[in-house]
Amino acid sequence: MYTAVMGYGTVGSGVVEVLTKNHDSIVKRSTQNELEVKYILDLRDFPGDPNEDKMIKDFNIILNDDDIKIVVETMGGLHPAFEFVSSCLKAGKSVVTSNKELVAAKGYELLSLAAENNVNFLFEASVGGGIPIIRPISQCLAANEIDEIAGILNGTTNFILTMMIEKNMSFEEALKLAQDNGYAEKDPTADIEGHDACRKICILASLCFGRHVYPDSVYTEGITKITLEDVAFVNAFGGVIKLLGRAKRMENGKIFAAVTPAIVLNGSQLASANDVFNAILVRGDATGDVVFYGKGAGKLPTASAVVADIIDCARNIGRKKPFGWGEATENYVVDYKTAENPLYIRAEVTDRDKAKAEIGEKIGNVKYLTFDGCSENEIAFVTENGVEAELLEKIGSVESISVKSLIRITDY
Amino acid sequence: MYTAVMGYGTVGSGVVEVLTKNHDSIVKRSTQNELEVKYILDLRDFPGDPNEDKMIKDFNIILNDDDIKIVVETMGGLHPAFEFVSSCLKAGKSVVTSNKELVAAKGYELLSLAAENNVNFLFEASVGGGIPIIRPISQCLAANEIDEIAGILNGTTNFILTMMIEKNMSFEEALKLAQDNGYAEKDPTADIEGHDACRKICILASLCFGRHVYPDSVYTEGITKITLEDVAFVNAFGGVIKLLGRAKRMENGKIFAAVTPAIVLNGSQLASANDVFNAILVRGDATGDVVFYGKGAGKLPTASAVVADIIDCARNIGRKKPFGWGEATENYVVDYKTAENPLYIRAEVTDRDKAKAEIGEKIGNVKYLTFDGCSENEIAFVTENGVEAELLEKIGSVESISVKSLIRITDY
Repeated sequence: MYTAVMGYGTVGSGVVEVLTKNHDSIVKRSTQNELEVKYILDLRDFPGDPNEDKMIKDFNIILNDDDIKIVVETMGGLHPAFEFVSSCLKAGKSVVTSNKELVAAKGYELLSLAAENNVNFLFEASVGGGIPIIRPISQCLAANEIDEIAGILNGTTNFILTMMIEKNMSFEEALKLAQDNGYAEKDPTADIEGHDACRKICILASLCFGRHVYPDSVYTEGITKITLEDVAFVNAFGGVIKLLGRAKRMENGKIFAAVTPAIVLNGSQLASANDVFNAILVRGDATGDVVFYGKGAGKLPTASAVVADIIDCARNIGRKKPFGWGEATENYVVDYKTAENPLYIRAEVTDRDKAKAEIGEKIGNVKYLTFDGCSENEIAFVTENGVEAELLEKIGSVESISVKSLIRITDY
Repeated sequence: MYTAVMGYGTVGSGVVEVLTKNHDSIVKRSTQNELEVKYILDLRDFPGDPNEDKMIKDFNIILNDDDIKIVVETMGGLHPAFEFVSSCLKAGKSVVTSNKELVAAKGYELLSLAAENNVNFLFEASVGGGIPIIRPISQCLAANEIDEIAGILNGTTNFILTMMIEKNMSFEEALKLAQDNGYAEKDPTADIEGHDACRKICILASLCFGRHVYPDSVYTEGITKITLEDVAFVNAFGGVIKLLGRAKRMENGKIFAAVTPAIVLNGSQLASANDVFNAILVRGDATGDVVFYGKGAGKLPTASAVVADIIDCARNIGRKKPFGWGEATENYVVDYKTAENPLYIRAEVTDRDKAKAEIGEKIGNVKYLTFDGCSENEIAFVTENGVEAELLEKIGSVESISVKSLIRITDY
C-alpha cells in the first residue's frame, strides 16, 4: 500500500522516520500489508536527504496517482492544506493530518467530504501530540456520555507557567527561556495568547459533544497577564495556575467552552503535569475522570500519532469508520460568563480594612490569601462558587478595590 | 444485534445498565445497529429485577442461539469461564471479558481460538477498569516500539498505601478502613499480596512485547511488610511507595517483569495517583512517556470498558481485528534480580558508626535518610544504581546491619 506525505517539515520528516524505523513491527502488528511512502511533497529542496528520490513539488502527481490510497498532510496552515485535503478526499483517498488549525476551522466540512466519498479523515496528532486522545474518546469512551473535558493543551505556556511557579521567573524571563530552548517561536502569539489551545479544545469539544465548535465562538485568554504575585497567592491557596482549555455540556443542549488561565488544586493530575507536558481530563458519566498525560508536541511523539492514523486508514480501506460530528447550531457555545466557578481576585487597595468591610458587604463570604512578602497595597481573595456574571457584578461594585487579576478556580 | 451476558454480578449488571442508559448515543455514535441483551446467564435468582425475563441458567441456550453474535463474560474465575468462552469462540461468537484471571492464564490460547474462528476476543476491562489502556496500546501506540510499561494496577493497595502516607495509618488500620469502605474483600490476599496486579501486568506485558507472560513466571511481592517507618524514610528521600507492576524489554529478546512495592519520586504522574485510582505509564521509543489515569475498578467504569469492547465487536462482525500475541518462549521472563535499580534499605543496627563504616567499605557510596523521630536502632539508606543481584550480595555482606526492608527505586 502506498502513501504520500505533504510537507516535509518537523512532523512530516518524523512520519517518514517512524515508518522506516519501526517498519517491521508496524507491518506485523497492524496492517499485515506493506506501507510505503511513494511521494513527499514540499516546495523546498532537500539535497542529500535519504528520501530525495521521493520528493515532488506538484500536488497533482499525488492526486492523479491511483496507487496512493492514504495522504498525510503535515504542511500546517489553512491554505493550501484545505484545498489539497479536500481534493484528496474527493478523489477517494483517506487523509491523515496533524494540522489543528485545519481541523478546528474545517473539521465538519472535511469529515462530511470523507463520509460522502467512503474514506477516512483522521487527526489523532492534532491534539496532544503523542498522547492517544482522539481515538480513546471516540472508541473507548463510546459507552460514556462525556460531561466535561479539560486540558493543558499547549506545552509552551505550560513550560512558561512551570518556570514561573517552580523557579520564580517572571513571565518575560520564562518566555525567553522557552524561546532559547526551542519550545516557543520567535513570534509566540499563538501560544501565549491561547489561540493554539483554543483550536485544540474546539476539536475535542466537537468530538465529545457532537457538533462543530468554531474557534471564534470560544472565549480565549492567554497567560501574558499572570504575575509572580498571582503565582504566590495561588500557592497559598494550595493550587497552581495552568492554561486550560475547557468544554462542558450544558443542560439546554448547548455547550460551555473557553480557554483561560485556571487554578487547579495541588494533588490533581492536572496540577502535576509540568514543563512541556500536556494532560487532558475527560469526565464521563460511567468512567468518572480519566486523564491522559504525555508529550504534547515534538517530532517523534507527533509523528507516532500520525503513523497510528495511517495504520488505521490502511486497515479500513473502503470502509468509513463511524467517526465525526455534525454542524454547529446557532449560538451553540454559550456566553462563558453563564458558567459557575469560584473566582480568585487580586486587587489594589489603599485602605485594607475598609476594602474588607465592603467586600464582606457586597460579595459576601470570601477567603483571603496572603504570602510572605506580599505587598501592603494588594489584597487577594477567593469567592464562593457562583455564576461568573453575577460574581463579576458584585466584584465590580466594590469601590475600594481596583481589580488587577481574575482567575477561575476549577474542580479537576 | 443480540448479545448475552454471562454473570450478573457487579460488572455484569453494570454492563446491562450502561447499555440501557446510554442506548441512543451508543447506537448513534458507534454501531448504527441496535444492540440488545437477549440473555443473562446466572445461577442465582434475581426476583423483581427489571431484566428478570432475560435470566437463564443454562449456558447451552446461549451457545446454540445463532442470533447471539457477542457474548460478555463477567463471571470471573477460571472455571467454568474458560470452558464457556472457548465454546463461544469455537461457535463463531465474539467474546468480551473483564476477567483478568482468565486472560492472564489463558490469553494466548483464547486469542488463537478467536483467530481460528474469525471472531474477536477483547478484554479492555481486564486492566485499569474504566481507563482505556488495552486499545490505546494496540492501536494508538502501534507506531511505537514500547520499551517499558509500569503501573499502579490495584486500587485496594493504592488506597491502603495512600492512607499510610497521608494519614499515618498503620497497614492494619488502613486495610480495615479499605474493607469498611468496600474497597477490599474479607479475604484481601489477592490484592495485598500483589496477585491481582500480577495478572494485570501479565496482560499488559503480553500485549506490549508480543508473547504471553504467565503469572507464575513473574516475581510478585505484596505490601504487607511496608511499615510507617518506610513511609517516613521514603518521604525524606522525596518519594512515595507504590505497588507497581513493571515490565521491560531486555536486549536479548526476553523481558523483565515483576510486581513489587517501589519508590516513585514526588512530581511523577505515578506519585500523584492516590486513593483507589490507577495509573499506567507506557514508555515508547517515539512517544516518550504516556500516562493513563483513572478509576481502576467499580461497577460503571469497568462496565463502560466492557461496553466499548461490545461496540467494537459489533463493528467488526465477520472481521478479526489484528490483535493478539504469541506463545511464550522458554524462560521468556528473566530473573528479576538481573534488572538494574537503586535500592532503599532499612536495617537494624547496634553501632551506627561502625555500620556506616562497613557500608561505605562494602557497598560504596550511599545516601542516608532520616526523619524527625526515627529510631536510634534503625538506619536507612539508598544505594547507587546497580544490578540487583550484585547490590544484594554487597548488602548481605555487611555484618553490622540486619535488613528489615528493601524497596526498589524507579525512574518513572
